[in-house]
Amino acid sequence: MDFISQHITSKDNSVIKNFRKLMTSKKERRLKRQFVLEGSRLVFDALKNNAPVTKILVTESALEKFCGELEKYRSREIIRISDELGNKISDTGNTQGVFAQCDFMEECGVLKTLKAHGRYAVLSGLQDPGNAGMIIRTADAMGLDGVIFSGSCDIYNPKVIRATMGSVFRIPVFSDIEEDDVFMKLSAAQIPSYAAVVNMEACDVKSVDFSNGGAIFIGNEGNGLSEKTVSKCTYSITIKMNGNIESLNAAMATGIIMWELTK
Amino acid sequence: MDFISQHITSKDNSVIKNFRKLMTSKKERRLKRQFVLEGSRLVFDALKNNAPVTKILVTESALEKFCGELEKYRSREIIRISDELGNKISDTGNTQGVFAQCDFMEECGVLKTLKAHGRYAVLSGLQDPGNAGMIIRTADAMGLDGVIFSGSCDIYNPKVIRATMGSVFRIPVFSDIEEDDVFMKLSAAQIPSYAAVVNMEACDVKSVDFSNGGAIFIGNEGNGLSEKTVSKCTYSITIKMNGNIESLNAAMATGIIMWELTK
Repeated sequence: MDFISQHITSKDNSVIKNFRKLMTSKKERRLKRQFVLEGSRLVFDALKNNAPVTKILVTESALEKFCGELEKYRSREIIRISDELGNKISDTGNTQGVFAQCDFMEECGVLKTLKAHGRYAVLSGLQDPGNAGMIIRTADAMGLDGVIFSGSCDIYNPKVIRATMGSVFRIPVFSDIEEDDVFMKLSAAQIPSYAAVVNMEACDVKSVDFSNGGAIFIGNEGNGLSEKTVSKCTYSITIKMNGNIESLNAAMATGIIMWELTK
Repeated sequence: MDFISQHITSKDNSVIKNFRKLMTSKKERRLKRQFVLEGSRLVFDALKNNAPVTKILVTESALEKFCGELEKYRSREIIRISDELGNKISDTGNTQGVFAQCDFMEECGVLKTLKAHGRYAVLSGLQDPGNAGMIIRTADAMGLDGVIFSGSCDIYNPKVIRATMGSVFRIPVFSDIEEDDVFMKLSAAQIPSYAAVVNMEACDVKSVDFSNGGAIFIGNEGNGLSEKTVSKCTYSITIKMNGNIESLNAAMATGIIMWELTK
């Protein structure tokens, strides 16, 4: 275990204090430009995908279990913490004892050129971290070209990161992008924009021709997209079904539309 | 507030003790043939849909807020509890203070005749309550004829019930059904069965003709369907995508297949 740089048992240690702050405060994350990860799968997914992990924290029990795998990442700063501390800093009920601290992903904060006729999901006012994470995960499954956050929840919120199940390290995600910037880049890449609305007069998603690609705009869970955003989109689309559309969760609705977009 | 039958402030009161047992123990639920609900939306959805609610528990604070609505259900047993007790019996972090105790839904435990050429989801070994609830919710949205639980998690688990967002009271659900019984009733109703598998040689869900209806069999989150179940199904189908199918969550995959089944 010569790859362990230090052993922390006190909750007053500055590493632990900083970790907790990054976990709970968006302001702190923005200030330090760092975020945290919890869970063995998530941490190893980040490492495998070359995410800018700066520190790995691992409990004594977890160290026994993941020793072999951790050794591959010995060039990183790996810190051992007591099991008790692991339970203290955990954001989940039942921690696996593997945590990491990671720099913001550089390419995530700026919307550079989009892929010509690419396929994107744009979250505009979406607030629930579980939904946001599930959408990133599904976009990865369906092979979208990226997910853009605009006026939505914090992509670096631990609940969002956890709900992506590692997909956040596998597909391009863009955070805190101004809406005008989104429309400008879409236009430059010749990507039509589609506002997802609950309005039976909008175009049925089943009959949309997505052969030129498309950016799907998804709004807030309770209120949907703002009128202003809808009016800026090229088209309005909706999901027509026999059932009760009010029962469709935002992430599920987005999944259905992404399915039609990519098939 | 003459519709309040009693006021409970002690956690040792038998009503509270029974409520807690029903919340945490599947065995207790099976014994009493009752389950519990938490949350104003869920409780009022149950009442509106004539679910067999036997007791409504409401905290002092919640009573002020929901007094008018509760009065409509004055024929039921409505019990006031202290706010402190409300926090104690809550299964969520942030309770709304409205709870109910409900008899098992009579039609839920027996698989009677299925609708000829109907559309059903069959959960076979699915374990995560959040996924199970989300599938019931999405089946309601898409207008399926029912959801059948076979060898899966307990439909009356508070986490399942909560994740359905009230849909469990709106569409037919069947709990603890033997697999042989499922196949028998499907056959009688001339409904073809489709095993959802991750196998690129299986039939692409996009090209399946569901005009004779269909029952979609969904397996365990980690291991999928058992070979035995797959072999009993008429067809095997899969979701073909450009992306990483391993990233597709079980509830989302089921949602996509139900979408194809009903469109």
